[in-house]
Amino acid sequence: MDERLKKQLEFSLEIDKEKNVLRQTHLSNLGRRENDAEHAWHMAIMAYVLREYSNEKIDIAKVMLMCLIHDIVEIDAGDTYAYDEKNLKTQKERENRAKERIFSILPDDQKAELVSLFDEFEQYETAESKFAHSLDNLQPLILNNSNGGADWKEHGVSASQVYSRQNKTRLGSEKLFEVVDEIIKKNIEKNSIKE
Amino acid sequence: MDERLKKQLEFSLEIDKEKNVLRQTHLSNLGRRENDAEHAWHMAIMAYVLREYSNEKIDIAKVMLMCLIHDIVEIDAGDTYAYDEKNLKTQKERENRAKERIFSILPDDQKAELVSLFDEFEQYETAESKFAHSLDNLQPLILNNSNGGADWKEHGVSASQVYSRQNKTRLGSEKLFEVVDEIIKKNIEKNSIKE
Repeated sequence: MDERLKKQLEFSLEIDKEKNVLRQTHLSNLGRRENDAEHAWHMAIMAYVLREYSNEKIDIAKVMLMCLIHDIVEIDAGDTYAYDEKNLKTQKERENRAKERIFSILPDDQKAELVSLFDEFEQYETAESKFAHSLDNLQPLILNNSNGGADWKEHGVSASQVYSRQNKTRLGSEKLFEVVDEIIKKNIEKNSIKE
Repeated sequence: MDERLKKQLEFSLEIDKEKNVLRQTHLSNLGRRENDAEHAWHMAIMAYVLREYSNEKIDIAKVMLMCLIHDIVEIDAGDTYAYDEKNLKTQKERENRAKERIFSILPDDQKAELVSLFDEFEQYETAESKFAHSLDNLQPLILNNSNGGADWKEHGVSASQVYSRQNKTRLGSEKLFEVVDEIIKKNIEKNSIKE
């Protein structure tokens, strides 16, 4: 087998590990904790189904690929909970090391391509990145909401914390932010989110 | 919230259930059983990384979306193991009912679009469908191979059974079939697959 194909298959096997990275979000029907691969799959389909709500014109194929790969670095760096102040400080450095190790398994041209896409997501500047982030925020929100806000309750999360993250959802989609805002308000009323 | 968006969000929540549909394949490092959502995520990324090996020119965005949605019907119909002769007989009918129920949650235009994409995958005729199937076959193979062929051993699967499925991998990619063939031969030698 040639070297290029060997590297591509090695990368394919390596990313299997993402299925073991657990998030704080629980599946609907008060299920178990979700993992990163499931989250990425869910986000990518939601991006496609909800693409008409992007504020700007987007290349939906690019958004979907971005969704699919945006958490690969967590194979090494682990999931950092959105409201974990301590670990958020070291997140960038941990993820950079992971990015270098994992994407280096690929042939150079593909490493460059996927690293560039990952960086674009992180930089939060392009239309595609903003819309992908909207889904990164909305996807766990609808699961958590379907469970009566159980994840927020478990972590004692406050409205200002949720809004400081979710306000960015509107950068990708004003329309989806309306959904988010409605869900947050309902969960504040129910005391699932602290005022 | 308008009716259209409501339906799209309802569908988004519904497909969360795919994460509970277990396959016979185990994750690498002799892990737990894989679920359909993880499998679909894995296939879609592999399709992208290995797209240069498609026999025919393909629209890779279409292939990826096909990979992502191809198992949604299993939310109702369950996973049918590739070598389960009895359940394979009723698979089509079970999946048709599921397809109607689940995609009907979407607005009509999106239902039509995704049903058409699902049918295209099932019909195994277009270049995109053939390549998506190659990945549907290759992805569990590399996991199983990484586990010493444990899944084949568990089910007492024979070489003719594996080849009858995997021969179709070459319809999408002659090159990836070479990989598959090498893996199968190695596992026959090791007695993980019965001759």
